[in-house]
Amino acid sequence: MKTIDINGIKIGGGNPPVIIAGPCAVEDEEILMKTARDVRDAGAVMLRGGAWKPRTMPGKFEGLHEKALEMLSKAREKYNLPIVTEVMSTDKIDVISKHADVLQVGTRNMQNFDLLDRLGRIDKPVILKRGMSATIDEFLGAAERIIKGGNDEVILCLRGVRTFDHSQRYPADLYSIPDLLSKTDLPIIFDPSHAAGKRDLVESLCRMAIAGGVHGLIIETSCEPDSAQCDAKQMITPDILARIVEFSSKFQEIF
Amino acid sequence: MKTIDINGIKIGGGNPPVIIAGPCAVEDEEILMKTARDVRDAGAVMLRGGAWKPRTMPGKFEGLHEKALEMLSKAREKYNLPIVTEVMSTDKIDVISKHADVLQVGTRNMQNFDLLDRLGRIDKPVILKRGMSATIDEFLGAAERIIKGGNDEVILCLRGVRTFDHSQRYPADLYSIPDLLSKTDLPIIFDPSHAAGKRDLVESLCRMAIAGGVHGLIIETSCEPDSAQCDAKQMITPDILARIVEFSSKFQEIF
Amino acid sequence: MKTIDINGIKIGGGNPPVIIAGPCAVEDEEILMKTARDVRDAGAVMLRGGAWKPRTMPGKFEGLHEKALEMLSKAREKYNLPIVTEVMSTDKIDVISKHADVLQVGTRNMQNFDLLDRLGRIDKPVILKRGMSATIDEFLGAAERIIKGGNDEVILCLRGVRTFDHSQRYPADLYSIPDLLSKTDLPIIFDPSHAAGKRDLVESLCRMAIAGGVHGLIIETSCEPDSAQCDAKQMITPDILARIVEFSSKFQEIF
Amino acid sequence: MKTIDINGIKIGGGNPPVIIAGPCAVEDEEILMKTARDVRDAGAVMLRGGAWKPRTMPGKFEGLHEKALEMLSKAREKYNLPIVTEVMSTDKIDVISKHADVLQVGTRNMQNFDLLDRLGRIDKPVILKRGMSATIDEFLGAAERIIKGGNDEVILCLRGVRTFDHSQRYPADLYSIPDLLSKTDLPIIFDPSHAAGKRDLVESLCRMAIAGGVHGLIIETSCEPDSAQCDAKQMITPDILARIVEFSSKFQEIF
Repeated sequence: MKTIDINGIKIGGGNPPVIIAGPCAVEDEEILMKTARDVRDAGAVMLRGGAWKPRTMPGKFEGLHEKALEMLSKAREKYNLPIVTEVMSTDKIDVISKHADVLQVGTRNMQNFDLLDRLGRIDKPVILKRGMSATIDEFLGAAERIIKGGNDEVILCLRGVRTFDHSQRYPADLYSIPDLLSKTDLPIIFDPSHAAGKRDLVESLCRMAIAGGVHGLIIETSCEPDSAQCDAKQMITPDILARIVEFSSKFQEIF
Repeated sequence: MKTIDINGIKIGGGNPPVIIAGPCAVEDEEILMKTARDVRDAGAVMLRGGAWKPRTMPGKFEGLHEKALEMLSKAREKYNLPIVTEVMSTDKIDVISKHADVLQVGTRNMQNFDLLDRLGRIDKPVILKRGMSATIDEFLGAAERIIKGGNDEVILCLRGVRTFDHSQRYPADLYSIPDLLSKTDLPIIFDPSHAAGKRDLVESLCRMAIAGGVHGLIIETSCEPDSAQCDAKQMITPDILARIVEFSSKFQEIF
Repeated sequence: MKTIDINGIKIGGGNPPVIIAGPCAVEDEEILMKTARDVRDAGAVMLRGGAWKPRTMPGKFEGLHEKALEMLSKAREKYNLPIVTEVMSTDKIDVISKHADVLQVGTRNMQNFDLLDRLGRIDKPVILKRGMSATIDEFLGAAERIIKGGNDEVILCLRGVRTFDHSQRYPADLYSIPDLLSKTDLPIIFDPSHAAGKRDLVESLCRMAIAGGVHGLIIETSCEPDSAQCDAKQMITPDILARIVEFSSKFQEIF
Repeated sequence: MKTIDINGIKIGGGNPPVIIAGPCAVEDEEILMKTARDVRDAGAVMLRGGAWKPRTMPGKFEGLHEKALEMLSKAREKYNLPIVTEVMSTDKIDVISKHADVLQVGTRNMQNFDLLDRLGRIDKPVILKRGMSATIDEFLGAAERIIKGGNDEVILCLRGVRTFDHSQRYPADLYSIPDLLSKTDLPIIFDPSHAAGKRDLVESLCRMAIAGGVHGLIIETSCEPDSAQCDAKQMITPDILARIVEFSSKFQEIF
């Protein structure tokens, strides 16, 4: 089992689940700093936050771009939290690399081969999210592409998938946690937020993911979720995050 | 939250998960009796076993029918385990009711309305399995049909569903455990066996289901899984069952 | 290629597409008789109509049962149109067989094995609809079940299937027309009505099905679709039916 | 209904279907030139061919890149056929634009927002393929993105989609032809090749697409399909292409 070290934080192998938290999009410096402090106090060890947020239908808020990266850098200095943020195009790799410790590939870009090829040539870990309808084989093939490029620090991230049930947004693909654990040595983390689409489910999904042996969780969290322009309904608050961290610690202790 | 009482065994509400185990199909009296004893010793409180096993493609072993029911009755007498078995047509309801404590509707019959209507008029609990591509609304609608008929003792059973990923047989729909818990008061149990399709995954799936708050597990188990004509690869042995029961007990204690 | 003869109407093999039309449910004798006359005048050669219409959620209009069968019989006498109607449970096979020339198995019952086994022992043709999420292999397996039972007059009926796209109700599975033609000798017909969910699309879907080589069409049609309690939005009128029949005739002539 | 003019070839609106043909990937100059001549003689009016062919699993033949573009340019000069080729990353837009008349966005890049935004700023038509699990809304949203960027010459291309049926590779989404025609004014073309996965089905699928009112077909064709390293099994030969063109002409004439 591969272990990846991010500024001293170990993810994968026999290490306890790593908790990554932060807002969907970076929208406001004050809220970001407060959220960074609160998620750190709740037990998160890395901070996530989106700088570019293109939408399916153009026209809405699409992120603060470079300004968001600078805010994330400040939060990282102040609270000593490595930063995870999404990269959506090759020409942003350099600027994002200056500010982030881990670059994330989003679900819509899982098969953006050009992007994968370039990320194979950087020296930072990459979180690769499963495409919302990508097969496990395609998912592992996309990871292989980054690794073949020269970068073997790939973390696989499961999330919700697209199914036939129109009443459920993106049913969380919890089943693939044990399935993937049997098929790859790479660290596997889980993102409950888009799967849930509503705050209430996030905690349950995290408990299940931990019981399934996941190496980490990446959870949309904000100290003021209701004021967010992006994913307001699925972001949890730091107190729920604290309960998830507590569950995770106790679970590791006992099982 | 509704609690259903089966010969003193309480399922649903705040009661700890009920473990139901037994072979896919009843194939041999000696193996059945031994399996009944072993699953009871491992902590199961009810015995499952199939008497009719029609296949997608006709021609293979399709069950021992009435003879299987009689063997199940013997096991129930000897080991004091209530019996769960599947009913596939209205004309078998009477004979099955003589031997079984709980009648199960299989995934292919979830919308067999005639069968549902008749089960609404019996006085035994019904386990209703989700159709492998049925939406949550259709699933709850099918339960409603039985209840409207006059029988409100319906237990919902989640299992694997059909998805776009051809490398996974029936990915277990663990997500719907917390989703359903928020939508219905009926007891919800989980069947990991068809989802897994392989023995190794069953234990992980059960741990996740328990962490998700399920009211029970129904697990294909045999003291001699490799000799079975039906579902040999996904049946677990009583020692794995014992580990699942132990996990469940410890989990209830702590969380 | 198998040809099935229904009171002199030949379906399958090199015969031109057979047009079957009629209301979703039989709701009123006058409308039924008028519809029968109009669809016959438009070129349909068989009459369809539902007598039992159980719903996903119980409570709405569920059909006129035996009374509907008697009305269908009258229409058949008067307009010399063989009758197609759905059978949903084994205990209705006898009464339906008295009135209908072809028994139809609905999408929800494609794997109701008990029903399939009994239909294998009748001497009337069976229209078997594909389950809305059934694979082609399961579909052919279900047909095989009826044939193994002794009745080889099985007509396969394609319709819409369940997909990931929530804006489309049941996208019509037109692709499976040529795919099935290469895999089986049985006649293949197509039902555009549930796929469309709206009247406007029905004509286009029928044109495509004919271009794909289908052996027949079964189309929900009513002389007063807007007054129907069942599937009002997808039933076409006899004048649209006449255009479809004309397209079909011209197409056979030229290609 | 929008009509797009490509070097005098009109696509969309009431114009007859435009036939685009050529090899999956450009692999050899001689075969390409011969194929260009043969598809022109068969009635195709534009030439397609892939220059970059990244694979799900890295390691196989991935295209001749710039050399392929030069060969396409030669074929265009010699046979007066406008060129369609796929662009997979923003940094290739310039070089591809030098050689191609239409730039195609592949199924895996339908939501590569950065690429879409840049294509909104070029002055050449764009063929946008539907993501293999993208909803119609997402598809139209992606087209909107290019249009909002300033380029309103977008041609929508339907193909096979991912479904639950593991025996069918990518069932052709023929249903969406009339569905999209009712939802957008943009020209809609259809690619039967990946859907079919086998040569025999291509002709049937094209006939159905034409009957559905499609504005064009883009068909993988080679004078030597069996020697191809890419998609050998689904490429048709020029004589089958000629039959498809003939069907299309006759169909327009009569209906």
